[in-house]
Amino acid sequence: MREYPLSRVFQLLEPGPTVLLTTAQAGCANVMTMSWLMMMEFEPPLLACLVSSSNHSFTALTATRQCVIAIPPASLAPTVVDVGNCSGAKVDKFTAFGLTVLPASQVGAPLLGECFANLECRVADDTLVGKYNLFILEVVQAWCDSSWPGLLSSDPERVLPKTIHHNGDGTFRVSGETLNLKDHMVKWPECL
Amino acid sequence: MREYPLSRVFQLLEPGPTVLLTTAQAGCANVMTMSWLMMMEFEPPLLACLVSSSNHSFTALTATRQCVIAIPPASLAPTVVDVGNCSGAKVDKFTAFGLTVLPASQVGAPLLGECFANLECRVADDTLVGKYNLFILEVVQAWCDSSWPGLLSSDPERVLPKTIHHNGDGTFRVSGETLNLKDHMVKWPECL
Repeated sequence: MREYPLSRVFQLLEPGPTVLLTTAQAGCANVMTMSWLMMMEFEPPLLACLVSSSNHSFTALTATRQCVIAIPPASLAPTVVDVGNCSGAKVDKFTAFGLTVLPASQVGAPLLGECFANLECRVADDTLVGKYNLFILEVVQAWCDSSWPGLLSSDPERVLPKTIHHNGDGTFRVSGETLNLKDHMVKWPECL
Repeated sequence: MREYPLSRVFQLLEPGPTVLLTTAQAGCANVMTMSWLMMMEFEPPLLACLVSSSNHSFTALTATRQCVIAIPPASLAPTVVDVGNCSGAKVDKFTAFGLTVLPASQVGAPLLGECFANLECRVADDTLVGKYNLFILEVVQAWCDSSWPGLLSSDPERVLPKTIHHNGDGTFRVSGETLNLKDHMVKWPECL
């Protein structure tokens, strides 16, 4: 894992991957699967996510106000689904599913060694937690797998890990071909 | 376009596609591109999205409290980027980019004929608009393109339109192969 710039965190989450969320409370860590999240601000990076109060992770996230969002490669998809169909109240999911925990630098929740990016987060705003279970998180430290140099490149031809995108029914789309539309990313003439 | 069940709206947005958002105010419609959105509730379907106050659409969305979220197929990607790099304050984007507007049933904003799904929305909660430009929308009516029967199917082998997922730098990943992990979508034995 190497440091990933906070200014680029939005590039990891904007495509909409399904992610894992880890927490830790009183020496006991847990991990859940999450698809309902979005970016809210570039830098400092803010994101919103839904963690249901019926999830075991809700208690730890609310109490500690810390978590890690880990982005799994497509190869981890079966494990991601298993993690989402199992409760940390009954199972140590890291052991059960062979996930490697690594210490974070700024939060108590662990990083996941099998994920190509890990985002250390603190709860920045809990205004809508009571009504909707909506947490607003600030990413305070980010890491990426150094074996994917494309993650830190600005080349539009960079190679990025494949991610999974949940269709909400147990099927996932894997990210496929890349479209380079950078030449369209300029102000349209009439709008200058 | 045919009716799409509100109970299945989450299946369209959970994969994280880049979308178009239309508004209409005082007889003048507009469209913008948006990648920062997420589901919040299954039914009635609630979603959160970020519409910056620097966007021309912000004024209409705030004033009318109505919009349409339209999901473009990957083939529309260049237009989606052009729409995002142009302001409705200066250009009629529907004419400029050849987008077909169709009347919605419950909101004043138009549906987009080139998009395979159109979600008519009302602002359900504006608590965090002032602080973050975060709108919570309720989908009150949904439509899908009848030429994609997979959209209404429950078969895990159903064929879905390809969508685009913005890497935040003018490049997009197109949704690729489907992973069917329905057999993992059962409670893990130790968690029963």
